Amino acid sequence: MKGEGTGNPPSAVVLLSGGMDSAVAGAWARAEGYGILALTVDYGQRHRVEIDAARKVARWLGVREHVELRVDLRDVGGSALTGGIPVPRGPTEGIPATYVPARNTLFLALALGLAEARQAGAIVIGANRIDFSGYPDCRREFLDAFARVAETGTKAGVEGKAPKVLAPLLDLSKEGIVRLGARLSVPFADTISCYDPSPDGRPCGTCDACRLRRKGFAAAGTSDPTAPPEGR
Amino acid sequence: MKGEGTGNPPSAVVLLSGGMDSAVAGAWARAEGYGILALTVDYGQRHRVEIDAARKVARWLGVREHVELRVDLRDVGGSALTGGIPVPRGPTEGIPATYVPARNTLFLALALGLAEARQAGAIVIGANRIDFSGYPDCRREFLDAFARVAETGTKAGVEGKAPKVLAPLLDLSKEGIVRLGARLSVPFADTISCYDPSPDGRPCGTCDACRLRRKGFAAAGTSDPTAPPEGR
Repeated sequence: MKGEGTGNPPSAVVLLSGGMDSAVAGAWARAEGYGILALTVDYGQRHRVEIDAARKVARWLGVREHVELRVDLRDVGGSALTGGIPVPRGPTEGIPATYVPARNTLFLALALGLAEARQAGAIVIGANRIDFSGYPDCRREFLDAFARVAETGTKAGVEGKAPKVLAPLLDLSKEGIVRLGARLSVPFADTISCYDPSPDGRPCGTCDACRLRRKGFAAAGTSDPTAPPEGR
Repeated sequence: MKGEGTGNPPSAVVLLSGGMDSAVAGAWARAEGYGILALTVDYGQRHRVEIDAARKVARWLGVREHVELRVDLRDVGGSALTGGIPVPRGPTEGIPATYVPARNTLFLALALGLAEARQAGAIVIGANRIDFSGYPDCRREFLDAFARVAETGTKAGVEGKAPKVLAPLLDLSKEGIVRLGARLSVPFADTISCYDPSPDGRPCGTCDACRLRRKGFAAAGTSDPTAPPEGR
């Protein structure tokens, strides 16, 4: 049994986006023995259908609580996911336009507040650094820096009980994530990874997130239940 | 002229709460030559009248832009400022109930996203560690840890242009803050520091924030234009 929360069993705040990675991270946390407090952030993203997917995954996980927080980053802008910039198609050079300034910092800050308020022993994020879009806030050094923020900037941290920052998928390829998820019976059909889905939630098939997801399922030799038919 | 933003003059995101400290921090940033991007967070706090005060201070500062973001932390709870816990009166032991879990981490995360989206060279926060309420997220080690998050977790940071995290009041007493603000002609009458003001915005006079503010003005030998009359 992991975690140092006062709950019984100890609890972990899982950042649940509705995508495949966070669903697998949540399933991992449950398998590790944590009671799950799911946190979903509606930040004004294009792909709001993610929120519905997060609710389905939270039900499947049997979470203790699912907190949905809304903070509209459209007034901040600076990203293809929240602003008027188009979502890029196909591979791009460098950090792509889908990068949302400081998004994981914000998600972790909200998770940290919730973890502290609920005395949870850990925060779980589905970030991974192998088959990813080059986002700076999906790297070990960033997560380590945030862990130091949790230690120094909270009452829990001052008392030596800062929630741990866990990124169980960090060093897994997309193939490894699909394999782990399959082993934990993650309902991939309920997840959505696309940056620009149709209004009824079908993935576009051409954005970076769709491309990486397809690559992962293909490498794992598994079919993706959400894969779009040829042509879309 | 300070800052490394691409604006001309360079800009700084100033966290503007409507309180005295952030007003003085904003005035400092302006005096340092920064163009000001004000950021005010409505987090569901008891003292919502703060938001009106922040707007007045922003007007006085002549900001380039005033972004107001809303994220309702009442669903997170864990604080006298957002939940059903009463605001303590008089001095308390340890970190008081008015501590909001991870609040400055959240504020800085939002400021970091805005700074990156606007290519601002700095983030300015009015935190101070001398006459303060013992909040862990008002200390140097926390701010240093957050600066590392900015360096590692943003596109700007990867490019060596992470916004600096500036806390010009960190080592000032409340007296020093009042003196600096007076020198910069800060309109103290437009600010409010109380945790539990009356609906029309009058300070209670008995909470920690009122107590510290009163102490600062008294020590500086200045009268506080917002001081409540005897009896309230």
